[in-house]
Amino acid sequence: MRVLITGAQGFLGRLIVGRLVATGSISGQSITAMTLIDMVEPTPPDAPFPVTCHAGDLMAASLEPHDAVIHLAAVVSAEAEADLDKGLAVNLDATRRLLMAARDWGTVPIFLFASSVAVFAAQSNERLTDRTEPTPRSSYGAQKLIGEILVRDLSRKGIIRGRSLRFPTIAIRPGKPNKAASSFASSIIREPLNGEEAILPVSPDLRLHLMSPDGAVAAMAHALDLPQDALDGATTITLPGISVAVSDMLAALTPDQRALVKEVPDAAIAKVVESWPGGIDTPRAEALGFTADADFAELLTLSKAHL
Amino acid sequence: MRVLITGAQGFLGRLIVGRLVATGSISGQSITAMTLIDMVEPTPPDAPFPVTCHAGDLMAASLEPHDAVIHLAAVVSAEAEADLDKGLAVNLDATRRLLMAARDWGTVPIFLFASSVAVFAAQSNERLTDRTEPTPRSSYGAQKLIGEILVRDLSRKGIIRGRSLRFPTIAIRPGKPNKAASSFASSIIREPLNGEEAILPVSPDLRLHLMSPDGAVAAMAHALDLPQDALDGATTITLPGISVAVSDMLAALTPDQRALVKEVPDAAIAKVVESWPGGIDTPRAEALGFTADADFAELLTLSKAHL
Repeated sequence: MRVLITGAQGFLGRLIVGRLVATGSISGQSITAMTLIDMVEPTPPDAPFPVTCHAGDLMAASLEPHDAVIHLAAVVSAEAEADLDKGLAVNLDATRRLLMAARDWGTVPIFLFASSVAVFAAQSNERLTDRTEPTPRSSYGAQKLIGEILVRDLSRKGIIRGRSLRFPTIAIRPGKPNKAASSFASSIIREPLNGEEAILPVSPDLRLHLMSPDGAVAAMAHALDLPQDALDGATTITLPGISVAVSDMLAALTPDQRALVKEVPDAAIAKVVESWPGGIDTPRAEALGFTADADFAELLTLSKAHL
Repeated sequence: MRVLITGAQGFLGRLIVGRLVATGSISGQSITAMTLIDMVEPTPPDAPFPVTCHAGDLMAASLEPHDAVIHLAAVVSAEAEADLDKGLAVNLDATRRLLMAARDWGTVPIFLFASSVAVFAAQSNERLTDRTEPTPRSSYGAQKLIGEILVRDLSRKGIIRGRSLRFPTIAIRPGKPNKAASSFASSIIREPLNGEEAILPVSPDLRLHLMSPDGAVAAMAHALDLPQDALDGATTITLPGISVAVSDMLAALTPDQRALVKEVPDAAIAKVVESWPGGIDTPRAEALGFTADADFAELLTLSKAHL
């Protein structure tokens, strides 16, 4: 089982690399080689099998045959919205190039595509279900939805064994704020825990469909192990999450930490986040064995280990 | 109002060109110039405004600024299924190139994209609604759905005034059978009317969501005239049709004509057509003023004028 991971140097990329090195197998088959690709040089893990690292554009990378692909490389939401060409180049063209390379391999690889609940659009932060028709209100969501459709079609044709995971907002992430519109969801906890100020650009009443980084990695591992038959052609899976209000997240802080969070309403971000579902019912994913974090307290405890 | 029409030499292309030349306007604005593009040399109409004709690949064509685009060029279903690269090149890449050209024009053109009810997948030819989540079971349907998503996103960004029409099966068409899986829907009437044999590869019980060519052209004209506000961001419109069983279509033939239709079941085509909806409820399109043919008798009468 030769595994290719794109966006491998990102936060989730490094976590899934670590997990696969630890477990050593996918779907009961031993991992014999791993290729890591990212725009920045991937850090090779200490693994019992050869690991090849590539830094650079996925469009220019040489793509040798693999048996499993974990495609995490993406342009995040705010950047995809501001730069349509870049969003299409990475979120659409690079995905398509990987899929077409997989066709030429002839290995019918497992193909895990990282999609997002950003494919959904709520009217006003209300709760949706995994059967709600996706009507993205962002270019990022539109591009992820297109990727899902390609993964589904190539799976139907027997070219890949695809599974697209619609990830909840993943928090609390380590590191710095990034260009994702959801960046504040990590910032408002992470920065105060470090004694630093954070900006809250949205209403404390906003609800988020959240998953811990550990939950996201467990979901990826579970998805890689699923038999293709279990999907019955429906390769897109909306992952479970916990529905948490921003105010509930802030309540986990001490008063001193809470005082570090400055409410600075941002009309542009508010317009974006109102289209986010405040929660999502995900009976299909649960029937397939995917699970949400128990509650925000557990999510926070798990997240702190990475901060 | 400068109008660009792709696939202009196809059957529907020639009909909409004729209609626009006759009416001379779109959305109350006079047509001042028309550009026709097709793989085969378009026939210039006798028009009171200049008409420029281009034969060749849309990817290589020079795309000057226009105020309205009618994008009909496509690879049809059976061909898109057999040749994934060609389907993606025409149904996705050429659509995207047109959209990106439109962005550079700065004219915020009306952009009519010909989509298809092939984006839907029925379990077994049952009736669906325009709210059914599209889950295409053909590469053609997948590619049309991707086009819809791009049109929607670029409309949201104010780059175009997009409207994607999901066309029913359009029958009865003149000409020869083509590579569309639905080709038989015209063949089984057209050939017997001409005293020729036709092949029926599906069950006479199969129901089709049908529209006459005249109905399709009327729908295009109506869509071009719709104010963008009427769409409220939902640029995809599933068009009304009449639900007709193949046996009802055959009943319109005389006994001698009916005897010319040979039932030759084709398992591959049968597998495709069972995923076609036997009918579609389209309340949204009807509220927007789109109409279906009255019944099959009217559809046949209208169609005969083109045979």
